Amino acid sequence: MGNLIKITPRDNVGIVAHLDGLPMGTDVGNGVVLSEAIPMGHKVALSDLSPGDEVLRYGEVIGHAAQPIRKGEWVIGDKITMPRPPDLNLLSKGEEIIDGPAPSISGYTFEGFRNRDGSVGTKNILAISTSVQCVAGMSRYVEEKIRRELLPRYPNVDDVVTISHHYGCGVAIDAPAAIIPIRTLQNIARNPNFGGEVLVIGLGCEKLRPERLFPPGQSTDHSPAGDLLYLQDERFRSFSDMVSGIMDLADRHLRRLNAKRRETCPASVLVVGMQCGGSDSFSGITGNPVAGFAADLIVRAGGTVFFSEVTEVRDAIHLLVRRASSVQVAEALIQEMAWYDDYLARGGADRSANPTPGNRRGGLSNVVEKALGSVAKSGTSPIIDVVGPGERVRKKGLNFVATPASDFVCGTLQLAAGMNLHVFITGRGTPYGLSVVPVVKVSSNSKLGSRWSDLIDFDAGPIAHGQKTIEEMGWELFHQLLAVASGDQKVAADRLGLHNDLVLFNPGPIT
Amino acid sequence: MGNLIKITPRDNVGIVAHLDGLPMGTDVGNGVVLSEAIPMGHKVALSDLSPGDEVLRYGEVIGHAAQPIRKGEWVIGDKITMPRPPDLNLLSKGEEIIDGPAPSISGYTFEGFRNRDGSVGTKNILAISTSVQCVAGMSRYVEEKIRRELLPRYPNVDDVVTISHHYGCGVAIDAPAAIIPIRTLQNIARNPNFGGEVLVIGLGCEKLRPERLFPPGQSTDHSPAGDLLYLQDERFRSFSDMVSGIMDLADRHLRRLNAKRRETCPASVLVVGMQCGGSDSFSGITGNPVAGFAADLIVRAGGTVFFSEVTEVRDAIHLLVRRASSVQVAEALIQEMAWYDDYLARGGADRSANPTPGNRRGGLSNVVEKALGSVAKSGTSPIIDVVGPGERVRKKGLNFVATPASDFVCGTLQLAAGMNLHVFITGRGTPYGLSVVPVVKVSSNSKLGSRWSDLIDFDAGPIAHGQKTIEEMGWELFHQLLAVASGDQKVAADRLGLHNDLVLFNPGPIT
Repeated sequence: MGNLIKITPRDNVGIVAHLDGLPMGTDVGNGVVLSEAIPMGHKVALSDLSPGDEVLRYGEVIGHAAQPIRKGEWVIGDKITMPRPPDLNLLSKGEEIIDGPAPSISGYTFEGFRNRDGSVGTKNILAISTSVQCVAGMSRYVEEKIRRELLPRYPNVDDVVTISHHYGCGVAIDAPAAIIPIRTLQNIARNPNFGGEVLVIGLGCEKLRPERLFPPGQSTDHSPAGDLLYLQDERFRSFSDMVSGIMDLADRHLRRLNAKRRETCPASVLVVGMQCGGSDSFSGITGNPVAGFAADLIVRAGGTVFFSEVTEVRDAIHLLVRRASSVQVAEALIQEMAWYDDYLARGGADRSANPTPGNRRGGLSNVVEKALGSVAKSGTSPIIDVVGPGERVRKKGLNFVATPASDFVCGTLQLAAGMNLHVFITGRGTPYGLSVVPVVKVSSNSKLGSRWSDLIDFDAGPIAHGQKTIEEMGWELFHQLLAVASGDQKVAADRLGLHNDLVLFNPGPIT
Repeated sequence: MGNLIKITPRDNVGIVAHLDGLPMGTDVGNGVVLSEAIPMGHKVALSDLSPGDEVLRYGEVIGHAAQPIRKGEWVIGDKITMPRPPDLNLLSKGEEIIDGPAPSISGYTFEGFRNRDGSVGTKNILAISTSVQCVAGMSRYVEEKIRRELLPRYPNVDDVVTISHHYGCGVAIDAPAAIIPIRTLQNIARNPNFGGEVLVIGLGCEKLRPERLFPPGQSTDHSPAGDLLYLQDERFRSFSDMVSGIMDLADRHLRRLNAKRRETCPASVLVVGMQCGGSDSFSGITGNPVAGFAADLIVRAGGTVFFSEVTEVRDAIHLLVRRASSVQVAEALIQEMAWYDDYLARGGADRSANPTPGNRRGGLSNVVEKALGSVAKSGTSPIIDVVGPGERVRKKGLNFVATPASDFVCGTLQLAAGMNLHVFITGRGTPYGLSVVPVVKVSSNSKLGSRWSDLIDFDAGPIAHGQKTIEEMGWELFHQLLAVASGDQKVAADRLGLHNDLVLFNPGPIT
């Protein structure tokens, strides 16, 4: 450790851990001397490889040597070929390699906002949902007015958030895939952080009828009359009439939200979405394993954890299927992969669109290597259920929430699934943030962690240099999550007000 | 006129013009007495129809009687069947029915901001473009900071606008269809209202390389070094470092923009995008013909006009092909229709997804009737060129800019094509607005025009009641467009600050 990281004893490549990379001639032990300079996060051959030899990282095949590679050489790009993806028809299902759930832990709590349906919010937010983009200008207008004029009167309410989107009209509302954006909008409105207080602005002539989006009596856990408002309603005689109508409605909802108080809740009501973006070669060594350790702790405390990103786990699906808690779950996993293979093919794309140029510069050779690092953030728990895109979670424990890898689409679908806390691991760095839930940003390397000290919430870099263990940092992250969920600690994105758009998944090729 | 509108002498249905509809028993002349109450905008049979008989409006077949329909009866929904769309293989090409361009007019001017490339802005805006959604939170942050801290120092600059979007990463960047969103972003940055002053914020690891988006030396008409800024650039040691970097760059651009002044320009440099949304049965009688008359005036003054919305002209394509200025243009029109037919089919959709429920309530029976009213806004000029989605206009005169009908996608693609002024006709009412160009909102009926008096800029309703002619109101609209282009008159959307998002067309079924 210190200079080079080898993840399993089987591996025949090591990862350069030193922040400045390692110069030619460096002796990294075991008779390996670098024959060229290698940047941080990149791979060095630990033994001589002939063309066709397996290249092993995480104890798994990430490719085959495409040319002779000498011990000490930089293993990059074209020097290795990508293996074929696991054949979905040949996977064995439900062959558990885990010994069942790890021992449960108890006594961990946080301060949250309890809802009638049993869910718990980590923020107390008034949501303005919309049926169509046509009303976006209006909803933004009233959001600002509410923030300025009403929120100061309701100190227990954290924020007002508009669920703006590009769906609702000018879309093929009867196409088979329409179910995904529609149920996503329905379920986002049920996110625990909205506490059932959702105000819906519709236009009136849109294809996505607001009453289809929020069927009366089902829109939230209690649906007071007047939740739904149409701008084209003939009772509005002017723009300012509409504004007053919305403000009145908002005021009623805010009054109810303001009566809520944080209460001590067990960690078992946490619903934590795990995601990574802008990954580098360290993500799979530091950030993701730490997140995975924390994920295991949340599951062991009785809570719920999501991991996602179909295209980035596709090449590690053989490992995930073995962790399915039942044959049904294994089949559901395989089905989501198959749906996505087909979806990409229809759009003339395939998995090679991943990894990004930035991933490559960070040392990730291909999507196989990326996938193996990516699944580390799911920890080691059994996968208890598979949640389709836009669906809501049904079971506590570790869930696979099937989403694209796009950060914003994944985050949006995890919100729809019911997440109340988000962990986002990055190696290259992104100022990602969501307004609905706190996003705890984890850096995979200390170079980023220190350069972006005001944008990163948790630096997992010390693991790469042997200063801390995954277990130590996993517990630290777990405790930080409880503090953030309680509102005791504000994440960088909220402190700076950096929030990205919600982005619906309306199928059409997104990888 | 007054009670009922018959558009051509051939028509065997009339449109109820009275704002409150007409009661049963109303004698509408020529021996037609209503056998039931009929709402405003809906159709009444002017003669007895047997099953299979053609139903004629605009002198064209909008369907066939599905059952016996008696004179005086309401012609609605299921009573008529939809004709098949014109067979693209059987269309005659370039058979002009027009006598060539109408006589030119001259002497009409407005006050605009001249750019080096010959284009003219109707606003003077600093654009912040972005390569990827990851930077949206940051770009919104600096946009507000620029508006608050810098704009007050540069009184000749109208605004700062972020070109935010959901593209750039997590997308199939090498898919065949990727060319559309990419060239859209490239060309929006060249919109005349940005005056060549575009600041680009990239992340650093995204798939859509900012340098691909804005190739050095081509990003704008003059590309000073430092236009492009990456948040992951190692020279930024913190969030506030990034913010200062962007503010410095913005300041340089603002200084140049602030030196610009409005100058008298001929109407020939206007580039006017025509669009309708939330249409009703009146749109094709009042708003769209008035917009079409104004479109003709702009073309006659040497200017440029766009009309768009493939799915809404598809069923009137036989009329458009006859207006093509050459066989090549006719073939290009047909090709755009064919591409869209195929695109819809691949997504499991077809043209029946149009009209919307609101259109139907407004009296539009099907997409054929909607299309016939929709093309009225193109006026009568020859169609000189066809501009693909995301492409930039090449020729003055009337252009078909091939876009989906979705209001926001259409508006975004018209901005990319180079529009500096937008006309938006609505019957049901929508608070649509864009921040980049003024949007003149035209109501098709006075019921909406008076109810939404603070949201509508021009009421074409008086035509339905014989109070004004299309020609009179067409000239009025033309003069109003010159006043708006000059900045002398502020449109409702700008007065209230109601602006919708730009929405990229990343193919995946949008109708």
